[in-house]
Amino acid sequence: MVATLLKQTVQTLDKVVIFGVGLIGGSFALALKQQAAVRQVVGVGRTRAALERALALGIIDEIGGDLASALQNADLVLIAAPVAQTEAILSAIYPHLNPHTVVTDAGSTKSDVVDAARRALAEKVGQFVPAHPIAGRESNGPDAALASLYAGKKIVIAALPENTPASLECVSAAWQRCGAVPHFLTPAQHDHVFAAVSHLPHLLAYALVDQITEQPEAEQRFEFAASGFRDFTRIAGSSPEMWRDISLANRIALLDELAHYQVQLQRLQKDLQNSDGAALLAMFSNAQAARQRWIRTIEAAEKPGVGGGD
Amino acid sequence: MVATLLKQTVQTLDKVVIFGVGLIGGSFALALKQQAAVRQVVGVGRTRAALERALALGIIDEIGGDLASALQNADLVLIAAPVAQTEAILSAIYPHLNPHTVVTDAGSTKSDVVDAARRALAEKVGQFVPAHPIAGRESNGPDAALASLYAGKKIVIAALPENTPASLECVSAAWQRCGAVPHFLTPAQHDHVFAAVSHLPHLLAYALVDQITEQPEAEQRFEFAASGFRDFTRIAGSSPEMWRDISLANRIALLDELAHYQVQLQRLQKDLQNSDGAALLAMFSNAQAARQRWIRTIEAAEKPGVGGGD
Repeated sequence: MVATLLKQTVQTLDKVVIFGVGLIGGSFALALKQQAAVRQVVGVGRTRAALERALALGIIDEIGGDLASALQNADLVLIAAPVAQTEAILSAIYPHLNPHTVVTDAGSTKSDVVDAARRALAEKVGQFVPAHPIAGRESNGPDAALASLYAGKKIVIAALPENTPASLECVSAAWQRCGAVPHFLTPAQHDHVFAAVSHLPHLLAYALVDQITEQPEAEQRFEFAASGFRDFTRIAGSSPEMWRDISLANRIALLDELAHYQVQLQRLQKDLQNSDGAALLAMFSNAQAARQRWIRTIEAAEKPGVGGGD
Repeated sequence: MVATLLKQTVQTLDKVVIFGVGLIGGSFALALKQQAAVRQVVGVGRTRAALERALALGIIDEIGGDLASALQNADLVLIAAPVAQTEAILSAIYPHLNPHTVVTDAGSTKSDVVDAARRALAEKVGQFVPAHPIAGRESNGPDAALASLYAGKKIVIAALPENTPASLECVSAAWQRCGAVPHFLTPAQHDHVFAAVSHLPHLLAYALVDQITEQPEAEQRFEFAASGFRDFTRIAGSSPEMWRDISLANRIALLDELAHYQVQLQRLQKDLQNSDGAALLAMFSNAQAARQRWIRTIEAAEKPGVGGGD
C-alpha cells in the first residue's frame, strides 16, 4: 500500500474530461483536485446549468465547448452520465479520441457497457477501461459532490482483454488518488455479483412497497411500519429511471438471481404451510450467521464514510 | 393530549409484576419508575442471573418468589417473555390472579396470543389486554433496557370484546406514562398489518442472505455488498428463534402476504423477460413515491429516538 501510494504521488494528470458533473463525476474531480492529482478538469454535459454550477463550485475549471477541443490532449475521460447515454457519448468521442487518451466510465452495469463500447469505439476499444465505483449518496447533482465520497470505497475495474497495462494503471491510479481501492472483475463477474447483492435487493424493496400501496388498507399498514421497514425499503427511495435502466441493462443476470429467489420463497411458503419450525430456523440461522460475519468483515475493512446508494 | 396527560399524572400503580426483565420488560419498568408512575416492581423470570442483574440495575425492586405472593395485590402484570412462553405463563398466573389485576403482554403477534389467553385464562380472559409495543433495539437483556425506549413509539392495543374500559385504560395509561402513543387494532388487523410491514420483510431479508451463502461465489458476492445491502439485510441479523416463533404464530397472515409477493415477483420476472421498461418504471415510481410520502409522515410524527427492531 505504501509503495503504491508513493508511486501514485508522482503521477499528475494534465487534463481530465468529465461527462456528467453530478455526484459521481463531480466527486471524482474534487478528490483529484484535493490531491493535486490533476492540472485541468473540463466538464461536458447536456445541462448548461449543471456545468455552470460545477464551474462555480470549483469542480471543473472549464466548460467543454466542441468535443474536438475538449478532448484535445486529454489524459483521462470519465463518463459519469446516466448509463443509457454511454453509447452515444462514446460514439461522439470516437472521431476525436487521441491515441494516448484513456476513457473510463462509472456505470452500475458492465456487460452492456462493454457491448456499447465495442460498437462505438471499434478498433479503439482498448482505450476504454470499464469501471464502477461502489459509492453513492441519496442526493445528486454538482452540489452533492464530495471530495471524500470514494475514501475507502471499492472501485471495480472490469478490464477488457484489449486494455493495455498502462491504460489499466492510469484508471486504477486515478481512483486510488481519490481514496478508492481497486478490485478487478470480468464484466460478467461484475454483473452477476451486483445482480445478487444490489440489483435484486432493489427490485425486492420496490416490489414490497408497491405491494403495500395496492392493498385496501395501505394507509393503516404504512402507519405501523417501523425502523425495520425503513431500512429494508431505503433503496426503494432510489431513482426509478436509474433502476429501470440498470434492471434492463443487467436483465440476464438479474433474471437468474430472481429465479433463485423465487425458489427460496417457495421453500418458505412450504415451510410455513407445514409449520416446519426447524426448516425456518435453519434458514434464518444460516442467514443471521452469514450476515454477522459479513458485517464484521465490512466494518473492519471500510473506514467510516459517506453512506448512501450503490 | 394535554387532558390525557393531566389525567395520567394522577394515576400511580402500586405494584407491577413483570415476567421477563430484559429489553422490553426492563425498559417498561425503568420508564414507569422515571415517571414515578409505580411504587413497586416485582420481576419474575426463568433466569436467576437476569433477575439479579435487573435488581442491581434498579429495574425491579424485588425478585418474585412464589407466584401467589408475587401476584398478590398486583395492579398490572406485563408478560415480556418470548411469545412461545405466553400460554404457560398465563396458565401459571390463572389460579393466583386477583380480580382487580390487569394482565397485558408485549408479543409481536396477537391472534395466537389471544387463543392462548382464552385457553389459559378461561372466564378471566377479560382481565387480559393483548398489546404490542412497536419499539426495540439490536441488543437484549436487562443491560439493554432504557427508560427512553418507548418515547414517541406506538403501543398497539389489540383489545378483546371482554376487556372492560377500566382494564383498557389501565394498560393504555401505563404505556402513555412510558411515552408511548396508544393505537387500537383488532388482533386480526394487527397480525395482517405486521405480516405486511414487518414479518414478510424479515423473511425476505433472511431469504436473500441465505441465497447468497448457497452460491458458489458467495464470498466474492459478500465482498462487494455495500450500504444498500447492509440496510436491506439489517433485519436478517435478528434472532432466528424469535422470528421462527413469530413466523409460525402468524403463519396464516404471513402466507397471505407471501402469496401476494410471489405474484409481484412474477410480474417483475415477466417485465424483465419482455424488457418492459415502462412496466418496471411504473412499479418503481409508485414504490418510490409511496416510500417518500411514508418517510415524510413518519419523520414528522416520531421524535428522534432509539432505532432498532420492531
